[in-house]
Amino acid sequence: MKQEQLFDIRLIFSTLGSLLFFEAGFMAIATIVALFYREPDVPALCYANAITFFTAMLLYFPFRRSDKKQLKKREGYLIVSSIWIVFSFFGSLPFLFSGYIPSYANAFFETISGFTTTGATILSDIEALPHGLLFWRSIIQWLGGMGIIVLSLAVLPIFGIGGMQLYVAEVPGPTKDKIRPRVAQTAKLLWSIYAAITMAEAILLYIAGMNLFDAICHAFTTISTGGYSTKNASIAYWNSPFIDYIVTFFMIIAGMNYTLLYTALRGNLKRFFHNEEIKYYLTLGFCITAITIICRMPKDLSGFESIIRSSIFQSFTIMTSTGFSTSDFMTWGAFLWTLMLITMMFGGCAGSTSGGIKTVRLILLIKNSYFEFKRLLHPNAIIPVKFNDKVVQSTIVTNVLAFVVLYATTIIIGIFIFLLLGINIKEAVGASVTSIGNVGPGLGNSGPSGNFSSFPDSAKWVMSFLMLTGRLEIFTVLFVLSPSFWKK
Amino acid sequence: MKQEQLFDIRLIFSTLGSLLFFEAGFMAIATIVALFYREPDVPALCYANAITFFTAMLLYFPFRRSDKKQLKKREGYLIVSSIWIVFSFFGSLPFLFSGYIPSYANAFFETISGFTTTGATILSDIEALPHGLLFWRSIIQWLGGMGIIVLSLAVLPIFGIGGMQLYVAEVPGPTKDKIRPRVAQTAKLLWSIYAAITMAEAILLYIAGMNLFDAICHAFTTISTGGYSTKNASIAYWNSPFIDYIVTFFMIIAGMNYTLLYTALRGNLKRFFHNEEIKYYLTLGFCITAITIICRMPKDLSGFESIIRSSIFQSFTIMTSTGFSTSDFMTWGAFLWTLMLITMMFGGCAGSTSGGIKTVRLILLIKNSYFEFKRLLHPNAIIPVKFNDKVVQSTIVTNVLAFVVLYATTIIIGIFIFLLLGINIKEAVGASVTSIGNVGPGLGNSGPSGNFSSFPDSAKWVMSFLMLTGRLEIFTVLFVLSPSFWKK
Repeated sequence: MKQEQLFDIRLIFSTLGSLLFFEAGFMAIATIVALFYREPDVPALCYANAITFFTAMLLYFPFRRSDKKQLKKREGYLIVSSIWIVFSFFGSLPFLFSGYIPSYANAFFETISGFTTTGATILSDIEALPHGLLFWRSIIQWLGGMGIIVLSLAVLPIFGIGGMQLYVAEVPGPTKDKIRPRVAQTAKLLWSIYAAITMAEAILLYIAGMNLFDAICHAFTTISTGGYSTKNASIAYWNSPFIDYIVTFFMIIAGMNYTLLYTALRGNLKRFFHNEEIKYYLTLGFCITAITIICRMPKDLSGFESIIRSSIFQSFTIMTSTGFSTSDFMTWGAFLWTLMLITMMFGGCAGSTSGGIKTVRLILLIKNSYFEFKRLLHPNAIIPVKFNDKVVQSTIVTNVLAFVVLYATTIIIGIFIFLLLGINIKEAVGASVTSIGNVGPGLGNSGPSGNFSSFPDSAKWVMSFLMLTGRLEIFTVLFVLSPSFWKK
Repeated sequence: MKQEQLFDIRLIFSTLGSLLFFEAGFMAIATIVALFYREPDVPALCYANAITFFTAMLLYFPFRRSDKKQLKKREGYLIVSSIWIVFSFFGSLPFLFSGYIPSYANAFFETISGFTTTGATILSDIEALPHGLLFWRSIIQWLGGMGIIVLSLAVLPIFGIGGMQLYVAEVPGPTKDKIRPRVAQTAKLLWSIYAAITMAEAILLYIAGMNLFDAICHAFTTISTGGYSTKNASIAYWNSPFIDYIVTFFMIIAGMNYTLLYTALRGNLKRFFHNEEIKYYLTLGFCITAITIICRMPKDLSGFESIIRSSIFQSFTIMTSTGFSTSDFMTWGAFLWTLMLITMMFGGCAGSTSGGIKTVRLILLIKNSYFEFKRLLHPNAIIPVKFNDKVVQSTIVTNVLAFVVLYATTIIIGIFIFLLLGINIKEAVGASVTSIGNVGPGLGNSGPSGNFSSFPDSAKWVMSFLMLTGRLEIFTVLFVLSPSFWKK
């Protein structure tokens, strides 16, 4: 019984069960939407909902414990890694049962792409889906967006389970700028900000001309930096500058640190605008926008305002790993799609729902290189790297180094696997970078105007794995996969 | 007169002058070769030789100093950076004067590609060159190979100039495993090993069937990991397994740390084979070879021995940044040419003439990532990174981080510039990676079967700059380009 000494299986099962109640609850909302529209997806959602709810009960009630036992670190990592797979399994059932995505590889891909807020799709005709499934597809991203775990942290205490370790596993980034000392309170707070911003966007999109259904769905997938749309043409469907600007604004917001958004909402704008990560995040995004505008200007005849609007939209949708589209960057020439490929790796701020390497890590990399110069020129001076006026410990720099090395290595291994599976080089590079960065569109045939339906099933499973690895910031997944994790 | 307070101009001029005597000396050997063959390159080499010699005198004699003044760090960096450009300027004259490379951009490219031991060429028909120019092209690589500076360190003391700082600027890598305390002695020693290995290869190549001229030229360009050949088809011209294996063996040797080669030659094989860098260098090279063999086996009908031979040849010629060819990896499919592209970044051991990131840095990156895992799982344990059983200081890890970040950034900026200049994406990526890695062949039309003649002049200047940046391990060039270098 060595396994039981390592992990408290009862605790893991009951935690997974309690989390599954949330998935069942959200699926119930999608079921209600389906019932409202009386479309053919009603039975599929009902069955899937029943199965999810029943499994939640089976996992929770027999294994729950009366003592408020804390999760250990390893149990935390295990739950964080497995919950995304478990959620994706149950989340894929409505697509499968309804017959709209008959292949299991496709249904799982679509669901984990949703939960990881990637937004890569295998659907060629999104609009063929009934409203219930479209809503489910969007709310999956919203649920995944803030982190299923952070969301559930706000409610887990009701089930009598504390989970500080989960927060450590969920956010291993360098920023630990806590709002309030207790995790459950923090999670509740973040969740309310998340919900409030989503509501604000939905209202504005509705005013701007979307119908209520589309407004809510797109608010879900913007704030979660997911990028699923209810239309084949994505945001371009509306062809409305007002909608483009609203979505751009909320994408920029969604790429920011929620701790700082809370600070800003409480009126402390000075602390917000003095934060280095926010400053560099905005600078970087607008620099990419400026380069894009300059490069497109001589060739593009769609008009000045249109070029600026679509450039800022595309730059931030890629940088924040949202992945909506109002235009196809593959038509902008090799220079700009290469720029977009690099931008896919950047990501927004730590503590946001965006993927990628994250601005704070990029800053630390650049600062370290810059200070290394100074150190080499003045070998006797002590020149520490600072972030937000605080000295960054060298252990954090080595952590960032390890993260970036693993990130790059995973991308390269991904590319090689895709090439072995017979995918062309451009699509292989795009698929690897977009999956681990949780962005959505790739390059070439799987770019903003395309999808991943032509990929073989094996490649879809690899992409699913890369999305999960990227979403959990690599370390978490690699921990669980390492042999030493399973030893005493 | 602020400039004069920063740098001792007299000292810089006299040092450059004394170094130019070496170039003039080596050019004289090429002139003798040309005279021996009585071909039309004789006047060009004579004129160029006279100009170089005269300039050396003009720089050296008026500015030499009687006091044995030590070079300061900044002066060292300046000399190291500028000497490659100065050498390339004078080195390009024979090509220009003879009319064999009439365009100045091409002549400079060909020469700096030689001095930096890159081996990228703009010549479509190498065999059209007379023997004197072919010899000059090869000996340029040999001169650049060991580092013009290290070579000259052995002789500079004759001119009364000490140069410890030059050694620091030349080898900023993490290894400072000195053979003997004094730099000049060290340089002399390394130079004799270098010459001895070159001679050994030349003799073996001659025995294997090359004529004396080709044997010497190829020994020059193998040991310097340069890769210039006297034949259009490179080593494939001889179609001789014996020659292939000899060149492979010496390429593997040339990618090794000369300090350790000295140790091995003195009989201390235990220390040689217990060195971590040597072990990982060989392991990595043979792993790439094995992957190449496995991937080629099912499709290639050229026979078992031929596949193994060309795979090990290609893997090591790319990894050590030599760049000879016996077969064209672009015909091996996207998987293998992508593998070769990644391999171009690796490089051999520190303290060798190879380019790239160098094995020791790769080891430190991988070890740091591995230990970061352990650190995250056991946050209270102190787990330092070790190399050759010694603890690696965190300052060295941050230095490696800075190097790799700058290396990757330079590659990406290079790619963007090439794209802006109208070069296709595959050729742009190949040109950037091969230039900074000092490898030679790129991808696509500028792969092993092609050359860079179709590139616009502007792109050739960018490649020349990237070769220099890569050769001087990035920091040196960036130092000299940084504004703070020119301030007090």
